[in-house]
Amino acid sequence: MNNHFYKKANKFLTFKDLYKMCNLINGINFQDKILDVNNIKDANNSDITFLNNSNYLKDAKNSKALACFVSKNFKQYLKKEIIPLVSEQPEIDFYKIVNFFYPNSSKDNEYVNNIKIKNIKKNIFIGKNTLIDKTVEIGNNVKIGNNVIINSKVKIGNGCHIGSNVILSNTFVGDDVVIKSGTLVGQTGFGFKYEKRKRFSFPHIGKVIIENNCQIGSLCTIDRGSLTDTVIGEFSSIDNQVQIAHNVKIGSFCIIASQVGIAGSTVLGNNVLIGGQAGISGHLKIGNNVKIGGKSGVVSDIEDNKIVMGYPAKSLREFVNKNRK
Amino acid sequence: MNNHFYKKANKFLTFKDLYKMCNLINGINFQDKILDVNNIKDANNSDITFLNNSNYLKDAKNSKALACFVSKNFKQYLKKEIIPLVSEQPEIDFYKIVNFFYPNSSKDNEYVNNIKIKNIKKNIFIGKNTLIDKTVEIGNNVKIGNNVIINSKVKIGNGCHIGSNVILSNTFVGDDVVIKSGTLVGQTGFGFKYEKRKRFSFPHIGKVIIENNCQIGSLCTIDRGSLTDTVIGEFSSIDNQVQIAHNVKIGSFCIIASQVGIAGSTVLGNNVLIGGQAGISGHLKIGNNVKIGGKSGVVSDIEDNKIVMGYPAKSLREFVNKNRK
Amino acid sequence: MNNHFYKKANKFLTFKDLYKMCNLINGINFQDKILDVNNIKDANNSDITFLNNSNYLKDAKNSKALACFVSKNFKQYLKKEIIPLVSEQPEIDFYKIVNFFYPNSSKDNEYVNNIKIKNIKKNIFIGKNTLIDKTVEIGNNVKIGNNVIINSKVKIGNGCHIGSNVILSNTFVGDDVVIKSGTLVGQTGFGFKYEKRKRFSFPHIGKVIIENNCQIGSLCTIDRGSLTDTVIGEFSSIDNQVQIAHNVKIGSFCIIASQVGIAGSTVLGNNVLIGGQAGISGHLKIGNNVKIGGKSGVVSDIEDNKIVMGYPAKSLREFVNKNRK
Repeated sequence: MNNHFYKKANKFLTFKDLYKMCNLINGINFQDKILDVNNIKDANNSDITFLNNSNYLKDAKNSKALACFVSKNFKQYLKKEIIPLVSEQPEIDFYKIVNFFYPNSSKDNEYVNNIKIKNIKKNIFIGKNTLIDKTVEIGNNVKIGNNVIINSKVKIGNGCHIGSNVILSNTFVGDDVVIKSGTLVGQTGFGFKYEKRKRFSFPHIGKVIIENNCQIGSLCTIDRGSLTDTVIGEFSSIDNQVQIAHNVKIGSFCIIASQVGIAGSTVLGNNVLIGGQAGISGHLKIGNNVKIGGKSGVVSDIEDNKIVMGYPAKSLREFVNKNRK
Repeated sequence: MNNHFYKKANKFLTFKDLYKMCNLINGINFQDKILDVNNIKDANNSDITFLNNSNYLKDAKNSKALACFVSKNFKQYLKKEIIPLVSEQPEIDFYKIVNFFYPNSSKDNEYVNNIKIKNIKKNIFIGKNTLIDKTVEIGNNVKIGNNVIINSKVKIGNGCHIGSNVILSNTFVGDDVVIKSGTLVGQTGFGFKYEKRKRFSFPHIGKVIIENNCQIGSLCTIDRGSLTDTVIGEFSSIDNQVQIAHNVKIGSFCIIASQVGIAGSTVLGNNVLIGGQAGISGHLKIGNNVKIGGKSGVVSDIEDNKIVMGYPAKSLREFVNKNRK
Repeated sequence: MNNHFYKKANKFLTFKDLYKMCNLINGINFQDKILDVNNIKDANNSDITFLNNSNYLKDAKNSKALACFVSKNFKQYLKKEIIPLVSEQPEIDFYKIVNFFYPNSSKDNEYVNNIKIKNIKKNIFIGKNTLIDKTVEIGNNVKIGNNVIINSKVKIGNGCHIGSNVILSNTFVGDDVVIKSGTLVGQTGFGFKYEKRKRFSFPHIGKVIIENNCQIGSLCTIDRGSLTDTVIGEFSSIDNQVQIAHNVKIGSFCIIASQVGIAGSTVLGNNVLIGGQAGISGHLKIGNNVKIGGKSGVVSDIEDNKIVMGYPAKSLREFVNKNRK
């Protein structure tokens, strides 16, 4: 699997070791070596993948994967040539193999091999005490504040303004983006499982993509994706103290007021407006042009063009009726 | 206009250029040159101003302004000598002219021309890695933490304690003020307009005024005003992770618990108590001695001495009745 | 009283001075000297203490304290040998004496007598611009990010990962703890009283204890205790932007999602799950295995094993019934 931020460890996994690592009942000791992880669509014949969602049944039929973690009831959909690894927790078993091949992806990187600021291009302004890794790519006419940390392989487009005390890791920033002071982008998300008296932290091999012309406020946290990316679509605007969890995808021209929280893997359409302190649960789909009132708590999908309010969020009309004296 | 933090650009604006800048239908090509912006009350005969609020009709009658952006239905209230510039968005057109004369006011400043700490007065303690611009004024017996950034022309009174990782810009801090670690004061607020595929960011020529004896918690954001100032009245106390948007004015002896958010231009009286995680919408007026329960969502004005709770916030009695089984 | 972070000032207090300091009516001018403060259980015969809670009546019978601030109606429960100091605000009067003996405990310390990083043990990674006081104790295999501030006498166990921009004061960190970037641990809490036109800030001689295997997210604030400690129990997991107030005690294996706020002195059992943006009022007791829905507002104690939701939080069944159309 091609990953901009993580180099695959140069090792292989045998099926014997895999059974042990995932606490699976010993299966056939296939002689093939597993060389990498991938999603079911892109996997090739030395990759392992997983299937736990009916959206991917078609991919399962066509996949070239060597092996696949799969729940009992999805096993039938798997192409015959793929070795099925029946599991009660296909995604979590897959995470373990991701951690095997990408051993640092469940942690945040603190090491900056920092460039000497005088070697930076002339049309870039860099503040004081700022650490920028030598592998970072920065466009033209960029302004970066003081005490900033930009970790390895981050890319920043043209015309951006990065405020002070910002930390950027595992992030692609487009052109003309503003990220205000104190905001942290690209850390690992809140994903783990207790296994008896041990914490198993989920890998985060995804990145954060902040598209052109976005504006992010101060003291926000935008976590990077676990297997996919966290995305802020172009021209979207986020106020201060907003939390965007891992894998969230925000469309374009969205406006998100202060202290909003969006839980993991939720997807927003375009032109979505969210009032201050609203919260959106994880794994939801919010349509285009949706308006969510301040302080609302959204716990289910919302169709295009709806206006919702309250907790649990309902249509504006229902909310007003309910709160009428 | 006299502005402590922004020097007016040394240039003038012709009416011809103004029509173009604001997409107004070409009007009379007056030969007068516009030299500055100002509010309608203080404007002089080379200033441009705007009128979009019935609170200022009296000022409109007496204003000395050269020209005024005005909505159709307010035009009649304008003094005859003032050139009326009829606009569908008088405030936003005015913002454009503000940006013309104060070209950096819609952005945050990251450049610190930092003083050598050894040149600081003896009774001031300054931590390590702290950047203080040479133009900053600091009183006696002040303690400033590590990694602090204090931008140009900020004023800090006597006896203050500024925690670590704090950023202060465009701010006047009174005497005996505590600002705890990680708090950002004086950044631009969340104000912009999409104009087709461009972002027009509103100017923020206002400042933040933190009066004597205030205490501000950790990881708060207090944005500076756009045209007026953001004000925290004396002896007011703010807990951690509170968001105070641009132009908010807080009276004296207010107590604001953790994670509260106050949206733009809202005005609080004195002795207001706000419980944790409450939110107050923008442009509201909250009276003196008001108590707002934790987690309430205030969406309308509140008279003096009221106790409110819930979302939308209602009187405590109504709230209790409604939630009784 | 033995306090790891605060050395007692080398001075004593006479009863005459005490009456004045606390605005008490002049009592008998006992010749004994008050040498220290302590809780009622551990106090010895030169200590002063306080009693304002019926949970401690048994301790009051057996205490060896020299004197005790006590409310009128609790005076009868005090052992005869203890000098009773009847007060309308026993705890606050006690705080004043704490401030007398521990004069810096109501403020945050910004001074770091920082160690040269090259003198750090070889198996510890330390980022750039990081300040670590010479009195800090750090275990093996620890990773510490950039721009971190670790104040005097903090202890960090083995295998910990401290992110960038973190501030640790008055904190004991166990083994295998992760604290993500931008989080502030061990600051003073939000405790003060206005006395006419003066602010009296409460002492914070407690610390923060983060037990083994905890994980704390980014941009969290965890305030230290006033008289007792703030505790995060082992294996507990806290997401980004969470506020934990002074004296809060969290059990083990709790999971707390993003933007949650827990007010002062609340105690959580083990295995408590809290959804995003929920808030818990102060001085509450939350049982074991309790589940609190996202955005809930908890204003009363919760028994073991309950599931609650809404504001004010009620049982899940009631919440669903109430919100059914």
